Formats: sequence, structure tokens, C-alpha cells
Amino acid sequence: MYRNDGFRELNREECRQRLAKAAVGRIVHTRDALPAVLPVTFLLDPDGAVLLRTSAASELVRAIDGAVVAFEADEVDAASRSGWSVVITGSASVVTDRMEHERLVRTGPRSWVAWPVEVFVRIEPELVTGRELVAE
Amino acid sequence: MYRNDGFRELNREECRQRLAKAAVGRIVHTRDALPAVLPVTFLLDPDGAVLLRTSAASELVRAIDGAVVAFEADEVDAASRSGWSVVITGSASVVTDRMEHERLVRTGPRSWVAWPVEVFVRIEPELVTGRELVAE
Repeated sequence: MYRNDGFRELNREECRQRLAKAAVGRIVHTRDALPAVLPVTFLLDPDGAVLLRTSAASELVRAIDGAVVAFEADEVDAASRSGWSVVITGSASVVTDRMEHERLVRTGPRSWVAWPVEVFVRIEPELVTGRELVAE
Repeated sequence: MYRNDGFRELNREECRQRLAKAAVGRIVHTRDALPAVLPVTFLLDPDGAVLLRTSAASELVRAIDGAVVAFEADEVDAASRSGWSVVITGSASVVTDRMEHERLVRTGPRSWVAWPVEVFVRIEPELVTGRELVAE
């Protein structure tokens, strides 16, 4: 979030409402010391964490498990110059608790591809920021 | 780009074609040692660089001028499980050459907001990667 840039800041509840409507977001992390970004489907846990479902063997999991990452979702209409963007920054970790894993198998996000072994990744909502652009 | 994740890799020309159709992308950078991401409008220069137009006083410019950043654009349809994502990684720098600045005032990207003093930022296409998801 940058101030003095012509956008309206969103509070935490406004951020949550917008994320709850989005289906796709982007994981921002570091890979080989370079910035990296990857679109993912996700689900917002009732406690505000971002939940991903992916292959246990994926390079994404290796890259982000235990790291601080940013998760971004947005909806932007360049033609009407309107939209919003929400960023959650926090620690990402693979869900290792068996009960929690089973809960997420039933209620958690779906992945696009059927993986042989799936894992869930939680991103803790340590920092939640958002901005809205309203056409003048 | 991660291999073995069920997506098709795009070559450089395929990446360029997809970026040329997109109006909005996201700048991925580091802010206060944390990953940060911000949607922006952009234009693809004929030489493959990504061009942004923003306020000279913006915190974004201070954060990315001289840094290696990632620029991502995507088009994802979660319902049909199809889409693409392209990432350009390279050095970002404010255009300081006067002739080049004037060329970009005429032909470059538009910004959403009228800034008192505008600058253009170039992101060099040092690394270009892309992936496509085709529904099975």
C-alpha cells in the first residue's frame, strides 16, 4: 500500500469482503533470489488465512513452505479505471496436522489438476492491506 | 515457471503475444524487506520492455528504480480451468533520457490518474517466462 497515490485505502474488513468474492490470486515469493509470482486458486479460511491446495511435489511448495510471502488478488477494469487490489503478507506453511488436513479435504479449496499427493498451504494474514480505485 | 506442475510452458514469442493483449499487470518488488505487489497499467515497448507511467513522487518509483523486479500479467478463468500467466523479470529504471521521455509522452502508456509530474519506468525483459493451462 502506497499513500498519496490517488487510491483509497481499504480497511481489513473491506479487504476480507473483496477476497471472499475472488477465485484466483497470486503468490509472490522469492525463487533463486529473484522475485517470482504465480497465479493460484484459493479459499479464504474463516479465520482470515489464505488456503491453497497443490501437489506435495510442487516446486512452489518447496519455495514457500516456511517463508514469508505475499498473496495478492485484484479486480481491475482498465477501461473504466476502477477496481481494487488486496495483499495479504505472512508466513506460508504446509498443513501437517492430520485433523486439519482432513477438514480441508472436505471444505478446503479445489486445485485445477488432480495431484497424486496433495497438500494444503496456509498463509497467515499477518499484514492485510488493500486499495480501491474509483474513477473520477 | 515451475516444471512438472501440469502446465504448458510458453516460449518467448507466445509470451509477447499474450502480454500485447493485456492492459493490466502487477509489479512485484520488495518493500521494507517484504514482498510487495501492485497492479499497474502498462504498455509493451516494441523492444520487449515493459513501460509504466506514474507519478515522479510515487513510493513505487522509489521502491523499484534501479531494482530487479518481476512484472506479471495473466488471464485466468477459474470456472473453465484455463488461462495463462507471463512473468518478465529484469531491472526497473526511470527513463531519464529527454528524447526517450518525449517519445513516451506521445506513444507510451497512459496512467489512471493525472499526476503533476510524471515519469516513465522501463522494465528490461531479461528473463521472460510464461505458462498456459488448458482444461483437460
